[in-house]
Amino acid sequence: MSTIKIGLLGFGTVGTGVVRNFQRNAVTIEKRLGHKIELAKIVDRDATADRGVTLEPGVVTTDVEEVISNPEIDIVIELFGGYEPAKSFILKAIANGKHIVTANKALMAVHGQEIIAAANQQGVSVMFEAAVAGGIPIISAIKENLCSNEFSSILGILNGTCNFILTKMTEDGSDFAPVLDEAQKLGYAEADPTFDVEGVDTAHKIALLSALCFGTTVDFDQVYTEGISKITSMDINFAEQMGYKIKLLAIGKNYGDQIEVRVHPTMIPNSYQLAEVNGVFNAVRLTGDFVGPTLLYGSGAGMDATASAVMGDVMAITRDKISGAQSRVPIMGYCADQIKALPIKAMSEIISHYYLRFTTVDQPGVLAKIAGSLGKYNISIQSMIQPESRNVDTVPIVLMTHAAKEADISSALAEIETLNIISQPTCLIRVEPDL
Amino acid sequence: MSTIKIGLLGFGTVGTGVVRNFQRNAVTIEKRLGHKIELAKIVDRDATADRGVTLEPGVVTTDVEEVISNPEIDIVIELFGGYEPAKSFILKAIANGKHIVTANKALMAVHGQEIIAAANQQGVSVMFEAAVAGGIPIISAIKENLCSNEFSSILGILNGTCNFILTKMTEDGSDFAPVLDEAQKLGYAEADPTFDVEGVDTAHKIALLSALCFGTTVDFDQVYTEGISKITSMDINFAEQMGYKIKLLAIGKNYGDQIEVRVHPTMIPNSYQLAEVNGVFNAVRLTGDFVGPTLLYGSGAGMDATASAVMGDVMAITRDKISGAQSRVPIMGYCADQIKALPIKAMSEIISHYYLRFTTVDQPGVLAKIAGSLGKYNISIQSMIQPESRNVDTVPIVLMTHAAKEADISSALAEIETLNIISQPTCLIRVEPDL
Repeated sequence: MSTIKIGLLGFGTVGTGVVRNFQRNAVTIEKRLGHKIELAKIVDRDATADRGVTLEPGVVTTDVEEVISNPEIDIVIELFGGYEPAKSFILKAIANGKHIVTANKALMAVHGQEIIAAANQQGVSVMFEAAVAGGIPIISAIKENLCSNEFSSILGILNGTCNFILTKMTEDGSDFAPVLDEAQKLGYAEADPTFDVEGVDTAHKIALLSALCFGTTVDFDQVYTEGISKITSMDINFAEQMGYKIKLLAIGKNYGDQIEVRVHPTMIPNSYQLAEVNGVFNAVRLTGDFVGPTLLYGSGAGMDATASAVMGDVMAITRDKISGAQSRVPIMGYCADQIKALPIKAMSEIISHYYLRFTTVDQPGVLAKIAGSLGKYNISIQSMIQPESRNVDTVPIVLMTHAAKEADISSALAEIETLNIISQPTCLIRVEPDL
Repeated sequence: MSTIKIGLLGFGTVGTGVVRNFQRNAVTIEKRLGHKIELAKIVDRDATADRGVTLEPGVVTTDVEEVISNPEIDIVIELFGGYEPAKSFILKAIANGKHIVTANKALMAVHGQEIIAAANQQGVSVMFEAAVAGGIPIISAIKENLCSNEFSSILGILNGTCNFILTKMTEDGSDFAPVLDEAQKLGYAEADPTFDVEGVDTAHKIALLSALCFGTTVDFDQVYTEGISKITSMDINFAEQMGYKIKLLAIGKNYGDQIEVRVHPTMIPNSYQLAEVNGVFNAVRLTGDFVGPTLLYGSGAGMDATASAVMGDVMAITRDKISGAQSRVPIMGYCADQIKALPIKAMSEIISHYYLRFTTVDQPGVLAKIAGSLGKYNISIQSMIQPESRNVDTVPIVLMTHAAKEADISSALAEIETLNIISQPTCLIRVEPDL
């Protein structure tokens, strides 16, 4: 068989990492594959940019067709990101019989089914390890080595920007806005950070992981998504006093006939490993019925770690091709005809522990009134902090509840709002105590 | 293609876990494979034992030939353990064209090359994910998803017995012997615990991981192996005062033209994740040039977690067979003709930081003499603890050194022994500060 030829769409940060990985480790890669692979074409939409790598003349082009319609190309790596034109390019490449490797979580989470159906029809692979948790080999672990397990839960810290901001807020006692500023200056947050800090990026990733683990499709619009922009240093401080860290946690849980898929700031006990995942690092904690709890930790983003994941997929497809394998592992881990759409539980139905910070008028009997309303809705209190009043007008009351239904919490909070003892909106943070 | 048939050699703890995994998750396994697999024959050397699982009549046999020479069997799972007769059975099964899945770390570490050569000649697979770190998918991560990386180091906590004992000693301030007793009562340590507590089991595992990561053969006899039986609660206590935990660490490092492969009690800073791996859990920290530091954590032993790893391998081989793949991934991650024997650095040549606890006569000038000898051999001291004397005769002096060559440490300690100030053998524990 001749050299496997790769075409790359996108020559930004990750694309440059892929080129560096190809070049620097070419000898080792060939020793492992027993076969040559060649990065034959790279589409750079900015032909004038200096990417800091040396390439043979003719490799770089601005014409996407030279990759997606080039009969010599076996594997197309898509790193443009976003929905379009990435989707159209991928579909055309599939129609032309190319295998696809992509880091595009948004596209796979929202339009994955269309792409996968096209790929299955053509008998080509679509791999996207780099779309979730950067270099951490979580997707291949789910689809391959841990595939004899029924997975009951998946918990992830999947966005380096948010984790950097929360870590920094925790370490420095700072508030959100100045730390976001700093993250932007350091290149850890985009100029428009909305997708990251509002949890959308994390939601794309947990939608994909839940689908892979639970053998279901996940309607992305049904994924509850709440970001970190309202987290205050006061809440981080109270969390610390109670022995918790606040993380933007991606949660997927399987109840057999329905699943939970949600993203929100979450308090986790200091004693759990996810609480110690700091800075731009990512981690995923999977629980399978045989393997038990298993944690994978590493670089969730960045040129090199993402390139490692992309290259792992390229090498997997190359190994399929040179060993004669056809459709060896289903794209979503389950055979396409075995995937069913499990309903996602409404948020009102979830059971969680809750951190509630009330800002109340400073007068006797307030706690009794709050506790009364909570009790009425079967919510019992696990612990309470009521700091000494420093402000004549308002005082915080911080409660940690035992397990409660979210609908009951909402009802109780609505009732408490009517009592004329609350002077600012109540802060609610879910707690994941049962890791 | 007809149902893939599996034969199992060994119906002890892990074998029973494999049967349970086959049975309980049969539906999910088939949804993922798109194909039926069948556990057709199980060799139970104790035909009278009740394994707590229900099987069709005729499945269990005492005759190994019904598996290894049965033309209907495609994949043989070897769970007998030990060198013989496991090795002979595996070689015969290979000669008969069977693919092999084994959890046998001792056999693979010591006789792996012979088995692999036979398998390569027959074009069959040998997979052994379960041999290292139980359910943690570390071998497949190295061979597959992370395979575009050059690995510089691998650090592992790979033996649940040792980690349970050290964790318990740390938590309770107990000494080794009573905790070993407790571990034996709980079933976490064997009646003869030598292989575990003296580090032999860990050495088998790091020999395999180093070979996989660095593309080399590892002569097991060259692996420096020191167990935990001499660790005292006093040293654990001093480590704590200095901000360290003591773990039985497996270390593999790659210097390009030579490697380090060693197992010994090691102090690691509390701030590193490996310091927080407690009880019977295992963890492996790999560093690749692109992926960066990556940690995998989970159950390192036990019926179910080990079964998960065995079944992952069984499903991988099944996927190869049904997709038509031949020799898709080389058994040791590198093509057999590309594996070279990198020399293992002699212990005298390694560079480490060192914890040294001297037991000295209680008289002035002792520290100066020790420091003088260390200085003469270019060993500089990073920190020192000299507790107030409670015993009229002897006093401990605890030193942490900066990076030093082991040969220099040995020379300095030999010289200090001659000074007539040392009243008991000096305790040396290597320190891994640069994770």
